[in-house]
Amino acid sequence: MNESETGAQQIASAHQKLKINMSLMEFEQFLDGSVAAPDGERPDDWIALLAPGADEATRRGLSAALASRADDVKRQVRPPIWVRLAAVRKELAAQGLAGFLVPRADEHQGEYVPKRAERLAWIANFTGSAGLVIVLKDKAAIFVDGRYTIQVREQVDAQLFEIRHLINEPPEAWIAANLKKGEVLGFDPWLTTPDAAQRYREAARKAGAELKAVDRNPLDAAWTDQPPEPIAPIWPQATQHAGLSATEKRALIAKKLKEKGQDAAVISAPDSLAWLLNIRGGDVPRTPFALGYAVIDKEGKVDLFLDPRKLTAEARAHLGNEVAVQPKTGFLPALDALGKSGATVVVDGMTAGVAIYDRLKAAGAKPAVGEDPCALLKACKNPVEVEGSRAAHRRDGAAVSQFLHWLSIEAPKGGLDEIAAADKLASFRRRNDLFRDFSFDTISAAGPNGAICHYKVTEQSNKPIPVNWLYLVDSGGQYLDGTTDITRTIAVGAVSAEMKDRFTRVLKGHIALGTTRFPRGTTGSALDAIARRPLWEVGLDYDHGTGHGVGSYLSVHEGPQRISKMPNRVPLEVGMIVSNEPGYYKDGEYGIRIENLVTVIEDKAHPGMLAFETLTLAPIDLNAVDRSLLTADEVAWLNAYHKRVRETITPLVDAKTAKWLEEATRAI
Amino acid sequence: MNESETGAQQIASAHQKLKINMSLMEFEQFLDGSVAAPDGERPDDWIALLAPGADEATRRGLSAALASRADDVKRQVRPPIWVRLAAVRKELAAQGLAGFLVPRADEHQGEYVPKRAERLAWIANFTGSAGLVIVLKDKAAIFVDGRYTIQVREQVDAQLFEIRHLINEPPEAWIAANLKKGEVLGFDPWLTTPDAAQRYREAARKAGAELKAVDRNPLDAAWTDQPPEPIAPIWPQATQHAGLSATEKRALIAKKLKEKGQDAAVISAPDSLAWLLNIRGGDVPRTPFALGYAVIDKEGKVDLFLDPRKLTAEARAHLGNEVAVQPKTGFLPALDALGKSGATVVVDGMTAGVAIYDRLKAAGAKPAVGEDPCALLKACKNPVEVEGSRAAHRRDGAAVSQFLHWLSIEAPKGGLDEIAAADKLASFRRRNDLFRDFSFDTISAAGPNGAICHYKVTEQSNKPIPVNWLYLVDSGGQYLDGTTDITRTIAVGAVSAEMKDRFTRVLKGHIALGTTRFPRGTTGSALDAIARRPLWEVGLDYDHGTGHGVGSYLSVHEGPQRISKMPNRVPLEVGMIVSNEPGYYKDGEYGIRIENLVTVIEDKAHPGMLAFETLTLAPIDLNAVDRSLLTADEVAWLNAYHKRVRETITPLVDAKTAKWLEEATRAI
Repeated sequence: MNESETGAQQIASAHQKLKINMSLMEFEQFLDGSVAAPDGERPDDWIALLAPGADEATRRGLSAALASRADDVKRQVRPPIWVRLAAVRKELAAQGLAGFLVPRADEHQGEYVPKRAERLAWIANFTGSAGLVIVLKDKAAIFVDGRYTIQVREQVDAQLFEIRHLINEPPEAWIAANLKKGEVLGFDPWLTTPDAAQRYREAARKAGAELKAVDRNPLDAAWTDQPPEPIAPIWPQATQHAGLSATEKRALIAKKLKEKGQDAAVISAPDSLAWLLNIRGGDVPRTPFALGYAVIDKEGKVDLFLDPRKLTAEARAHLGNEVAVQPKTGFLPALDALGKSGATVVVDGMTAGVAIYDRLKAAGAKPAVGEDPCALLKACKNPVEVEGSRAAHRRDGAAVSQFLHWLSIEAPKGGLDEIAAADKLASFRRRNDLFRDFSFDTISAAGPNGAICHYKVTEQSNKPIPVNWLYLVDSGGQYLDGTTDITRTIAVGAVSAEMKDRFTRVLKGHIALGTTRFPRGTTGSALDAIARRPLWEVGLDYDHGTGHGVGSYLSVHEGPQRISKMPNRVPLEVGMIVSNEPGYYKDGEYGIRIENLVTVIEDKAHPGMLAFETLTLAPIDLNAVDRSLLTADEVAWLNAYHKRVRETITPLVDAKTAKWLEEATRAI
Repeated sequence: MNESETGAQQIASAHQKLKINMSLMEFEQFLDGSVAAPDGERPDDWIALLAPGADEATRRGLSAALASRADDVKRQVRPPIWVRLAAVRKELAAQGLAGFLVPRADEHQGEYVPKRAERLAWIANFTGSAGLVIVLKDKAAIFVDGRYTIQVREQVDAQLFEIRHLINEPPEAWIAANLKKGEVLGFDPWLTTPDAAQRYREAARKAGAELKAVDRNPLDAAWTDQPPEPIAPIWPQATQHAGLSATEKRALIAKKLKEKGQDAAVISAPDSLAWLLNIRGGDVPRTPFALGYAVIDKEGKVDLFLDPRKLTAEARAHLGNEVAVQPKTGFLPALDALGKSGATVVVDGMTAGVAIYDRLKAAGAKPAVGEDPCALLKACKNPVEVEGSRAAHRRDGAAVSQFLHWLSIEAPKGGLDEIAAADKLASFRRRNDLFRDFSFDTISAAGPNGAICHYKVTEQSNKPIPVNWLYLVDSGGQYLDGTTDITRTIAVGAVSAEMKDRFTRVLKGHIALGTTRFPRGTTGSALDAIARRPLWEVGLDYDHGTGHGVGSYLSVHEGPQRISKMPNRVPLEVGMIVSNEPGYYKDGEYGIRIENLVTVIEDKAHPGMLAFETLTLAPIDLNAVDRSLLTADEVAWLNAYHKRVRETITPLVDAKTAKWLEEATRAI
């Protein structure tokens, strides 16, 4: 192709040459939507939407067209942060607002969001997965949680933003202290839950100010090159992996609604949408979400609102006549229709924007903020899903073991860097059957970077892995039969007595939680301290939860259960998959985390009691263990776990890895 | 006095002879109020209200008058339960109600309630401290929690009442299942919090029924001889014990209200009223409450609404001009006045009936259901209160040790019964300085009675304490300088290996919790599982909380913190006093509980960390311990605790007890 040909010209000629069955403008918009979707591990999948079964030449042409459009987008010059802030403030003034709340979440309160929702990155250069910015006329603040306290200082200009701890210095207090009497603080009702809106409203009231839902998001208005909504292909998830057909699931939800006396539910959680309809998409990174909304009624009828351009032929056939698909523009009128019939409608308190609640209310419906009816059914994996997860973990454990073997040779030589290590791990995972993507960006953290809990290596931050130090790697895969998530902390060479002490305490907490037997009805909040106690004993702790739910080829962070200090009323139930990941982080020095996924099982020997079965299978580095700190029971657990790892993984790996595995999983 | 003289005649002649400074009717009403108050340990204290400084003859005359009135009340014949139920149902029909909710709580949602609020005892013969009865036209149900599952079956006629578990089979589900469309379910808005009312309303709605606040409680209407409101004397609590003057406390609350932007608070919790004003009364058993309401505004001005007849001269002088006292009839008009000024008023979500909220709202106030502003300040004992508690626990520990010594001689002989043991323990406590009352009815439980968590021995249930079995005794004292609560389980003779195993597991849990170091911000819910884990290990558990807050010469069950499975958002803070009382109960066989009170302290060696200091000082029965189940650390804790008990208590007891103590606290 001619070097001087612009992206637009290339696309126009591709449109003509490839005989695309849509107008040029439609084609351009489609490409923009594709560019706005994350890259992922299957960058050509989108072609199935435009030209299913296309020949190789067509595929190449379409790829080139997309690449040229993506290049154009990437080359676009963006103004500096202070200019962006000024643009937002100008928009605030035009709307008569004294300030505006900018959450990290998207319209589904997601942790993984499409590019157009990366508002904190645009306004403050902060790329963490959670946080809140408040822009006022003359000051601004960013609030992040314990995972991001280091990262935020590296990324955000403290001249422009006050930096605050989301939990210890809550935004509500800041609002109450910084707003002035009579002022109006704006918020986007699609990005804010009814609960959060209520808290902000109360905070504003304390300052004598008012909270107001805006029609037009001032940040989006100022963000002139904000990406459009993503277009990524939607595929059916086979019942072979899902365990239940979409028809069966719809019947289950319908029954639940009837039992609760509810006429319908708005499904705003993308994982619930995917689970309910047995579909998977690609609108957000590392997680097979298809963004959209659905309304399911008590007869099991579903109206699905999402961009129909995202549907593959397979997905269309799969949804069939049982699910009515409409563009998102049909969503608000559908809420109005529910209002007209005076329906009682449950709206998920965790993911639905208050805009949904308000619209239903205004239309005459009886909205109730409650729990997404899919949430608990999705969380309690059925036997097919649990078996799928076991299989996925065997393949994943083989990949991780191969990597750890490779690392045991390469790292002690010195000079191996974080990116090279992550790339090598990726290469092992990519070879696995049913691999679709990574379940999150690998945390490959050398030395002090390990203390940044959710460190993401970049070309700039990339560091060599030091010898005689700890290296932390947290990674996972998305397989058609399950999602994995594993953290190992490796002693490269010989590590200090302090590091071994901390590592062993983290391990003690990991074992204590993993071996806890507990009665039905126990919540994760009740178990959290068991994992922390060995660290608490010496006055230490970690500033993150101990365990999160994990989806079945869905989000690696899934509710409603979790194991954390934060109170949670959801008991752990059979089939739930959660992580067990205590850690310890010493700022500027090192980080330790040991993470296995576990699934809740019945303890047949003790009726009424539940226990955890460990899913993750890879060695825990014995070179970092101080055996003298372990009790006999803890040593027995470690040896039994390693025996299981050895016996399961050996048949799946090459001879050299197998040999290494023998040593790495030896009884101590 | 003439045998044939009626009570009324006796009272009339006493009135004349003693020259009582009120009309005969007023005197009779006064006596009725006194009879309606609990007996307690200082039955003549009430005389200070009528004739302060009376001579001995007058005191005797007044005592006799009261006794004769009390006899009359006691002799009154009450109809059988089914007749009472019929009377309530007749009243329901008259009011057009299909049913009525009868909580155990009084107007302050109390656990300890005055006689007139013992509605569950009247309607169902159930005397537990918590529960709910629902009376419908053709059926009725009683809901009790895990503490009372055995007791309820012994007391309540299952032909008349369905018996349900309050937590596992919640009343809301029963309401939804048993009400019919269009029916009206009544409730008393003084006995029901806004939250509870909302839950019942939702439950009724599911059945297509309606929930309605009644003006006239149908049970009270049917209970023709319901006692009047109690009249018990109110005394000041000296600053020497309280640590802060009432003036200082009012200033603290005023500051808190201002900070939160609230104009006033309604104080409905009796312990908050007592704490705020440094007063103690006697309206409910075993707990020095003076029932009433107060309104405190953001300037610290207090309006107190309670029966002025309850005020001793000392209390009147103490309240002085800073607190305006009005009869309870002034309370609703005061709420209306708050409404007129449009005040923002915080109403305690735990203790205020929805009637208060609704009245404020109707009057134009802005009521907010929130936390009683006194609750946390009261819970975090000041250094004077903690020191007082330490002193009270030394005296209490001496009394318990004397009792355990006596028991070690008497019980193995066989034939000693539960009442005799409890009486003996009481006699030791009564001798203590500053003793005012017991902090609850002693649980003296032989054999299988130990499995009834809140067993209360009666003449009927009284059993001899079996030899070669476990005996459980849970008791406490109200001292001017502190409230105590201790449970010991004693091996009388030799007990089985199973009993020792269970006892030792309970002890392991007790030690694990007591030695846990934890970061600031940790809640009791987060720590609860630590005490249960040794039991969970073998598939066992206990159906009650692990720890409750304890007041300072106030309620033995105090919030807002607690250590329990139930989620709780209140962190444990320095100065809080909580119990540490894991247990194990084998139905029909035996019960085990080991309870010490502990106070939260700073762990100076580990900045930011908190720990527990044990307050309770009495031997834990080594004859019930299986040493082989204890770790070295657990043995070390037990020996250190016993050394402290020995060193502290020995100087306070007689030589024989001291000798016994040496053996009972030996190192193992």
